Amino acid sequence: MPAKVIQGTTLSARIREHSEARVRKLADAGVAVRLDAIVVGAPESGVLYARSQEKRCKRIGIDYRLHTLPEDATNQDVQNLIDGLNRDPDVTGILLNLPLPDHLDASASQYAIDPYKDVEGVSPSNIGLMFYGTPVIAPCTALAVMTILKEANVDVRGMDVVVVGQGNIVGKPIALALIADEASVVSCNEYTRELADKTRKADILIAAAGVAEMITADHVKEGAIVIDVGINTIAEDVEAGTPSRVVGDVKFDEVAAKASMITPVPGGVGPVTVAVLLQSAIDAANKQLGTRRFR
Amino acid sequence: MPAKVIQGTTLSARIREHSEARVRKLADAGVAVRLDAIVVGAPESGVLYARSQEKRCKRIGIDYRLHTLPEDATNQDVQNLIDGLNRDPDVTGILLNLPLPDHLDASASQYAIDPYKDVEGVSPSNIGLMFYGTPVIAPCTALAVMTILKEANVDVRGMDVVVVGQGNIVGKPIALALIADEASVVSCNEYTRELADKTRKADILIAAAGVAEMITADHVKEGAIVIDVGINTIAEDVEAGTPSRVVGDVKFDEVAAKASMITPVPGGVGPVTVAVLLQSAIDAANKQLGTRRFR
Repeated sequence: MPAKVIQGTTLSARIREHSEARVRKLADAGVAVRLDAIVVGAPESGVLYARSQEKRCKRIGIDYRLHTLPEDATNQDVQNLIDGLNRDPDVTGILLNLPLPDHLDASASQYAIDPYKDVEGVSPSNIGLMFYGTPVIAPCTALAVMTILKEANVDVRGMDVVVVGQGNIVGKPIALALIADEASVVSCNEYTRELADKTRKADILIAAAGVAEMITADHVKEGAIVIDVGINTIAEDVEAGTPSRVVGDVKFDEVAAKASMITPVPGGVGPVTVAVLLQSAIDAANKQLGTRRFR
Repeated sequence: MPAKVIQGTTLSARIREHSEARVRKLADAGVAVRLDAIVVGAPESGVLYARSQEKRCKRIGIDYRLHTLPEDATNQDVQNLIDGLNRDPDVTGILLNLPLPDHLDASASQYAIDPYKDVEGVSPSNIGLMFYGTPVIAPCTALAVMTILKEANVDVRGMDVVVVGQGNIVGKPIALALIADEASVVSCNEYTRELADKTRKADILIAAAGVAEMITADHVKEGAIVIDVGINTIAEDVEAGTPSRVVGDVKFDEVAAKASMITPVPGGVGPVTVAVLLQSAIDAANKQLGTRRFR
């Protein structure tokens, strides 16, 4: 029986609806949810992304403000901007759009964001708090995957989960979130030996390597749940007459024939990540009402 | 061929010697390494441990100060003490001895320690920085295991490592450190199914479950490296005439016959953990000379 395809767009629409209601409720209580985004050097992708962020925020009532710094901004300029936003009580969330120009230290800048305003959940404190099972704001990619599993009524405790990919943004946070939820987690990378032997034992297989269609039917156990976090662009091939297209890390058709559940690319984890990011922006505003115990 | 037994006492003596030289060098440069320990409610174990800490610190020239709070101290009392130590530039390291009395919030207190003075490496920021591969101070148990592997010239990248145990103090930090170093890591817990099938594939097996002698020869691949982080006390049995004794998570004799390297208990990871903790206290003093970029 072919896999149930988990539609991220449907789930994200539901999250968005819920978020809209929460923003309204907070507004009634006098709390404005505000998200301040930073783009440095106006790379085309960053500006495009910022515009779509703005649209999404406005749609659910989040006050979105974009701060742009010139291409030749210094680390100190970025730091000063972040410090100011950290201190401003009206700013409830901060988002640093990557990439930064090469001469800047992206890590140091991300680390400078107040953990309570760090809506992407990437600051070391937020990683550490997730590690301890007491998250303030979790990394949004991990949150998206955990949300999808929860929506599918999957309890990961004691399950064999294999995460392919150990990147800082996706693979590692997901492995950490799964460990925090007491799954048996196998974390693999490009140096992993006999990868297919490992992935074939997975009840849940998370593909987060960033390698187009590397996970084939041969990697997957019959009935496994497959979550594809990869987003890879295959270039147009003029001679073959194929346009450019976006694919995941999973060879969808053949794996879907074997899995019990699968997320598509596009339209799977991607839209859910966008939706949970705004959810985190609302959480951030809400949590800033309480005690700021951690820093 | 029986396993090479890694003597933690020998390694820790070498680390101590190196540490002593570093403390002297820092003193010559006008930097005093100081470790302020906190014991709340004077539990017998805590006081005993504090005394042996003091002795170890004095031996290598670290200025050790013990702060004791009464049994009925409040969370605010602990917080105030930590805040004062955080602010005092003469204090280069802080150590909160656990357990705290039940009415206190141990996590919140640990989290309150300045990450630059957190010699145990347990604050969320320090966990997060290790996660990103840019540690300031790593959790000392993880550091001890990584030090033992490094001393044995083991490069973990791409190796199959199984960590049995997902506790916050030992199992999880070790799994995280190994992922940061690009090993293929399997993180197991009490809910893990078919544990022996998993551990038998390990090039390196780390036992950190806190269950006396649970890892038997049947769990281990021929030639594996076995690191035993467990410390379990077996009660005295008067009728059988056996005194109380300390054992690890590994059934030493039968596993040693199969492994290529193994750490004993006692005398393995334990003394190395103690030695790297003091090493971290020196690192902390040294790093406080530089920029305090992260928080």
